[in-house]
Amino acid sequence: MTLLYSTVEGTAAGVFTTNRLAAAPVELDRQHLHHGRGQAVIVNSGNANACTGRQGMKDAKDMAAVAAKELGIRPVTVYVGSTGVIGNPLPMQSIRQAIPSLVARLRRTGGHEAAQAILTTDTRAKEVAARTTVGGRRVTIGGMAKGAGMVHPNMATLLAYLTTDAAIPSHLLQRALTAAVEESFNRVSIDGDTSTNDTVLCLANGMSENASLQLRSRDFARFSGVLMDTCRELALQICQDGEGVSKIVQLVIQSARTTADAGKAARTIATSLLVKTAWFGEDANWGRIMAALGRSGIPLKPDRIGVTVDDIPLVRHGVGLGMQAERQMSRVLRRRTFTVTVDLGLGSASYRLWMTDLSYDYVKINASYRS
Amino acid sequence: MTLLYSTVEGTAAGVFTTNRLAAAPVELDRQHLHHGRGQAVIVNSGNANACTGRQGMKDAKDMAAVAAKELGIRPVTVYVGSTGVIGNPLPMQSIRQAIPSLVARLRRTGGHEAAQAILTTDTRAKEVAARTTVGGRRVTIGGMAKGAGMVHPNMATLLAYLTTDAAIPSHLLQRALTAAVEESFNRVSIDGDTSTNDTVLCLANGMSENASLQLRSRDFARFSGVLMDTCRELALQICQDGEGVSKIVQLVIQSARTTADAGKAARTIATSLLVKTAWFGEDANWGRIMAALGRSGIPLKPDRIGVTVDDIPLVRHGVGLGMQAERQMSRVLRRRTFTVTVDLGLGSASYRLWMTDLSYDYVKINASYRS
Repeated sequence: MTLLYSTVEGTAAGVFTTNRLAAAPVELDRQHLHHGRGQAVIVNSGNANACTGRQGMKDAKDMAAVAAKELGIRPVTVYVGSTGVIGNPLPMQSIRQAIPSLVARLRRTGGHEAAQAILTTDTRAKEVAARTTVGGRRVTIGGMAKGAGMVHPNMATLLAYLTTDAAIPSHLLQRALTAAVEESFNRVSIDGDTSTNDTVLCLANGMSENASLQLRSRDFARFSGVLMDTCRELALQICQDGEGVSKIVQLVIQSARTTADAGKAARTIATSLLVKTAWFGEDANWGRIMAALGRSGIPLKPDRIGVTVDDIPLVRHGVGLGMQAERQMSRVLRRRTFTVTVDLGLGSASYRLWMTDLSYDYVKINASYRS
Repeated sequence: MTLLYSTVEGTAAGVFTTNRLAAAPVELDRQHLHHGRGQAVIVNSGNANACTGRQGMKDAKDMAAVAAKELGIRPVTVYVGSTGVIGNPLPMQSIRQAIPSLVARLRRTGGHEAAQAILTTDTRAKEVAARTTVGGRRVTIGGMAKGAGMVHPNMATLLAYLTTDAAIPSHLLQRALTAAVEESFNRVSIDGDTSTNDTVLCLANGMSENASLQLRSRDFARFSGVLMDTCRELALQICQDGEGVSKIVQLVIQSARTTADAGKAARTIATSLLVKTAWFGEDANWGRIMAALGRSGIPLKPDRIGVTVDDIPLVRHGVGLGMQAERQMSRVLRRRTFTVTVDLGLGSASYRLWMTDLSYDYVKINASYRS
């Protein structure tokens, strides 16, 4: 278990799974966020508290209430995170017993330990910190995350917690966080599954005492940019550490009619098992990219499509450029990271995401029995 | 290469890939189908003739024209199928040279040989034949297919060719075939990829001399039913022979609000890598089914959901039934085939499909280099 705590109450923002069977802690956090306030986060791993009915909701509330009582703060400022097996009731007795010792062990330098404590089978902690100047004051944003997908069969949950000493109203914090998540965690495709527990939370305690942020200000734009960079860094650390990941491919769809079209094409390619296994096999098989693009359902003009891998053009006007191009592509595919650009030749919208390959290890890890 | 030929011209119907980058032979077949007539099919494997631009279309036309000339029939009654690597021009010289010898080797008993010739890395031919009585005459439907997905990295194409001696107008044949494909080939999910070349064609030469079929007749219903059974049998044979397949799971979504909802839920579960690897690992992890259901986007009432595997209830009112149920499920999962039923408790619509597991062998086969 992990406990995050701020000595003063501040504002809060959150982005949660779109899964309609969201876990109890997600439902609770959503309720707490209506108040826009935050001071602590308590996280358990091993049990997702999802598909647990009314008992699950009661347990999540109890978890927040016990932590609030021990910390002497308001329960509505405490957020709960759970990750693990779906469908079993939380072991509330051991959770209740553990909370006082978590509180006793709180300390200012505990960030790295906390980042390690939320891991499941991740091989290393995901941490990031960044500074900027806002309203004349130095402001820090720190973040930690645990991995999503490919990490463990039953713990394929993304949990990310960000904290900042900025003074920022909750509605602006929410706006910045929503935009940051869209450009970071939502642009990483590992296995296409969306967990019942995915959560990104940001708490801002205002201790930097910066002048209050305004929506259309440079300061807000700067803060939002740093928050986005922070989220993107965590998202890429998750990719890098995905078990079974041997390739991280940046996929760019450009010259699309609309961003929605570009996103749809990108997600279809990113979740194609044939494309993912081609990366793993380092197979210069651009036909699989075209086949996935074709079934994405977006309008296409075949004779305008271009495909480039790093700086190697492979397809022009929808037709392959031959064996020499494929041989050059094969060399690029040996890299751990490369960029695939698909140009649709239809407009000016674009979309970028990061995808991974599909390896033996992914199947091994995810086929292993839970016990 | 394979050549199918009827001694007399008849009617034709076809269902093709929804991929927007459909291969040249698919485009050609669609054009020919406007006339509703058919007498022959010529198929090559090794090269998909997809993403080949204008040359590709010219080559497909030439292939039909040369076959028509050798057979002494109208080109518009000749359909072309291609399967293989995307993006290379067809080797037209060898194709042209091969056609006369294909014609010379045509014979009435060549069905099995033809079914073998269209295979790529399938381990056995997929064939089916059925008889029924229509308009007072015995009518036969025969079919053959090659596998889709999991079969070969670059030949993940479904090709199915059906022939019948029934006399049936092309618009009725099309109606029967569209319905049959929807309930058969469209209900089989192997890896979620839709090839640029998927084709199901049916030729009916009328030699049974049955009385002409009417839309709202028992005879048409019977013919359609047998055609559907024939397609379903071929679809299941494809699943059974998918390389890397160790499990075939019948997935039934029932008590849904609408068939569209049920289908969406079924397809989301069927393409979930976490669900597919759980089958491979024989892991009684129903939480993955719930997580996939939850992200399918359809409206759900969590406390109404029930999940059953064969006759073992696992989830009732959205909550798991405990360790004993999971132990019983584990025993069921050792079977090669079982049925997962998800009851949404919202209405009376349902949807059924067959999904496969995701094994080491799938990754191995699909990651291997083409050469």
